Amino acid sequence: MNFRSVFHLISYLILFLSGAIALSGLAGWGWGDDGAVVAKMLLSALIVLFPGLLTLWLTRGASDLSRKDGFAIVTLGWLILAHAGALPYLITGVIPNPVDALFETMSGFTTTGSTIITDIEILPRGVIFWRSMTQWMGGMGVLLMCVAILPFLGVGGMQLYRAEMPGPSKDRLTPRIANTAKLLYGVYVLLTFLETVALMFAGMTFFDAINHAFTTMPGGGFSPYNASIAHFDSPAIHLIITFFMIAAGMNFSLHYRALRGDFKSYWRSTEWKVYVSIIFVATACIFLDLIFNGIFTEWGQALQASVFQVCTILTTTGYATEDYDLWPLFSKTLLFILLFSGSCAGSTSGGIKLMRTLVVLKECGRQIRLFMQPQAVLKIRMGQQTVQSNIVSAISAFYLCFFMIFIVFTLLMTLFTPDLQTAASSVIACMSNVGPGFSAVGPTANFASIPWPGKILLSFAMLLGRLELFTVLVLFSPGFWKK
Amino acid sequence: MNFRSVFHLISYLILFLSGAIALSGLAGWGWGDDGAVVAKMLLSALIVLFPGLLTLWLTRGASDLSRKDGFAIVTLGWLILAHAGALPYLITGVIPNPVDALFETMSGFTTTGSTIITDIEILPRGVIFWRSMTQWMGGMGVLLMCVAILPFLGVGGMQLYRAEMPGPSKDRLTPRIANTAKLLYGVYVLLTFLETVALMFAGMTFFDAINHAFTTMPGGGFSPYNASIAHFDSPAIHLIITFFMIAAGMNFSLHYRALRGDFKSYWRSTEWKVYVSIIFVATACIFLDLIFNGIFTEWGQALQASVFQVCTILTTTGYATEDYDLWPLFSKTLLFILLFSGSCAGSTSGGIKLMRTLVVLKECGRQIRLFMQPQAVLKIRMGQQTVQSNIVSAISAFYLCFFMIFIVFTLLMTLFTPDLQTAASSVIACMSNVGPGFSAVGPTANFASIPWPGKILLSFAMLLGRLELFTVLVLFSPGFWKK
Repeated sequence: MNFRSVFHLISYLILFLSGAIALSGLAGWGWGDDGAVVAKMLLSALIVLFPGLLTLWLTRGASDLSRKDGFAIVTLGWLILAHAGALPYLITGVIPNPVDALFETMSGFTTTGSTIITDIEILPRGVIFWRSMTQWMGGMGVLLMCVAILPFLGVGGMQLYRAEMPGPSKDRLTPRIANTAKLLYGVYVLLTFLETVALMFAGMTFFDAINHAFTTMPGGGFSPYNASIAHFDSPAIHLIITFFMIAAGMNFSLHYRALRGDFKSYWRSTEWKVYVSIIFVATACIFLDLIFNGIFTEWGQALQASVFQVCTILTTTGYATEDYDLWPLFSKTLLFILLFSGSCAGSTSGGIKLMRTLVVLKECGRQIRLFMQPQAVLKIRMGQQTVQSNIVSAISAFYLCFFMIFIVFTLLMTLFTPDLQTAASSVIACMSNVGPGFSAVGPTANFASIPWPGKILLSFAMLLGRLELFTVLVLFSPGFWKK
Repeated sequence: MNFRSVFHLISYLILFLSGAIALSGLAGWGWGDDGAVVAKMLLSALIVLFPGLLTLWLTRGASDLSRKDGFAIVTLGWLILAHAGALPYLITGVIPNPVDALFETMSGFTTTGSTIITDIEILPRGVIFWRSMTQWMGGMGVLLMCVAILPFLGVGGMQLYRAEMPGPSKDRLTPRIANTAKLLYGVYVLLTFLETVALMFAGMTFFDAINHAFTTMPGGGFSPYNASIAHFDSPAIHLIITFFMIAAGMNFSLHYRALRGDFKSYWRSTEWKVYVSIIFVATACIFLDLIFNGIFTEWGQALQASVFQVCTILTTTGYATEDYDLWPLFSKTLLFILLFSGSCAGSTSGGIKLMRTLVVLKECGRQIRLFMQPQAVLKIRMGQQTVQSNIVSAISAFYLCFFMIFIVFTLLMTLFTPDLQTAASSVIACMSNVGPGFSAVGPTANFASIPWPGKILLSFAMLLGRLELFTVLVLFSPGFWKK
């Protein structure tokens, strides 16, 4: 591995991080934070700045990057940012325990949204904004890092695009990948801006609006309120957030095409149609279950609660408006299954992604037909495209890896949790970057009670899930560290 | 499909079934059953005999069987036997409800061992023996049906061997498949005989010994006692049953080779080594967990309980000596995971089978290496053999199908069960043909409390699992029923 080049690139990320911490501190000052807190935020930014500059200088004149270096940059980059980003929590004293601070930052940068903070509302506004900022930057990372930054530095594009770009999509918007990334990033910023404005129109303050926009668009789910979105009883706010969650779960390249006038591009995407159908079907099932079991008497409320919970979990955002842990067993189980799903490839959502589920279901159907006609040549088609058999194999392996890791991590988590629901849902909520799970880590609870080895395990699960498993697992491959 | 040939073959199975019912009735007579019960058993045999003979006569002069017919025979054969085999329960009045009787018989023929009988000990001995007999015949079916009966009637061998023979093994003992089946069957009968004798030496009556041997060797798990094996407090009995469960979970072709003097054949099998290692590791983990949590104070007892529960679940037998539902969370979760596993291909166990898990793990490793070196040509090896890529795809698809069906069935079962543990464990205990699960269907409970639609769903899950999913699913494929 070419350590010099890898760390040269990572030094840029560290400098960027330093700027973001300073910005959060100054924003907090504007929102009325105590001078001491602002000073501590700026101190954190300075502490991060120094090693960033040093690394940049030490690694000057770095050469080209290989394929292996790309994997190392993605994983090490995320790991280093999660550690450096924990400094503001530690230095301001908001989270005194380093493991807790790492958990919270990893949850931010991976856009998970699991939290160990038991009372967020008493924290300085600069720290709250920094917390939201980690998620927004994480979402940028997901869309941007391997599509733009690495190619910009001269790395061969597609292989790394495949390594980090969520899902198996090879859909290129423009021939130049760096350009593509800038366009996707433009869509991301535009949607964030629109959500902020919409939430302010619905009655939120600017502080609340930007924090929620910063955590909706990346599919994050951190909220500046302990009760999450349940803090607001305005149906307009619930509706706006639902709308932007759904948008964040779509492939951003479809949004880009729509912005250029091609609205039909949504309808041409098989994955988009499946995504919208799942929202409808799951909402209908839960709505009926809630009404049938008398959880809600008013239909409007039941519908609003159903669609919000379905979307918040399917898009792996993880906001809460209801304690769905008290819902009937069928609804709870359906939500639990959706924790695995994720939404579209090329979105900011985590989880398995619908594209993969589609390919896998088609492959199962193909195998059943092959049992009847062993000599037949059957191909899997996705829209207009034929999916190559090596891509099908890679997706199947991803799926199986995902389940295996889920099972092993759940078994390990049973050592730190009171019941199986907590163990299993904490693992999948972290692996899929959703946030809250069920039982002791349910929507009204948090992850504070998990012992520290459990928190480290879950932090690792977040990283694995966010970086699509293989990007991280490849570092454990015996051949990786050889010349 | 060639209905005439399919039903011609099935008519032989029905005649065989009729004989087995009559034999059970007569055996019960010998064990002191009431004359009325014996008469009702013989009446059941006669009622089954008639349509068997009629079908045999109506379908005389049947022609050759196609590949499709093979699938239909396996699935329809099992379905018809499960229905016809329910007659003795209904006619003797032991199980008055038809859905319950079907569930019990399906659980027998699929060697699952889930039961809806709340007090087995008061039943006539002929009925109890019939119940054990369904499992023993089911085990014969697994080993025999598609390896011997179908080729004997002129069906092309290997494709069907692949359709029903558990697991992906293509290992042929002798060139002639019919011969192979007879040899495997010989091993099966010999082991059943040895277990009966061993259990009698350990103090069981002949009735108890043969019933337990008849339900150990097929990996069944029906016991003539409500407390299952916990009824016996002799360590020798526990040890003997553990030994024969472990033997039943091994590939029978290895036993055959060992009987011919080639004891090293066990050691040459990768799957066998993995099987034995899992028994050791899982037992050690559970043993430590039980001792650490103070569930047992005596080490010997803890070890005996650990190894028995690991083996009963890994070999998908489903006997109980302890209420493992009261064990610590880690042990319970490990046992829950083992519910999916199954043991060796070519054994009488259900579940996924270790061979498949091995192939899937190797495939995941191969994919990770491919991420590093996309141009490399990497093959999966199993012992001396290279596994072809189409077999890897079929196994991956099987695995994914297994999980998908488990998830969908669990969601449906939440409509009929009090909690998620019951829903999920009832589905996997039936799909893997284990028997008892956790919570409301735990080792000290039974399936009587499940509402009838749930029982039908679980009966279908047993059939799906026993016939390796695809054999049944292929019947739902749109092309299957076309000429």
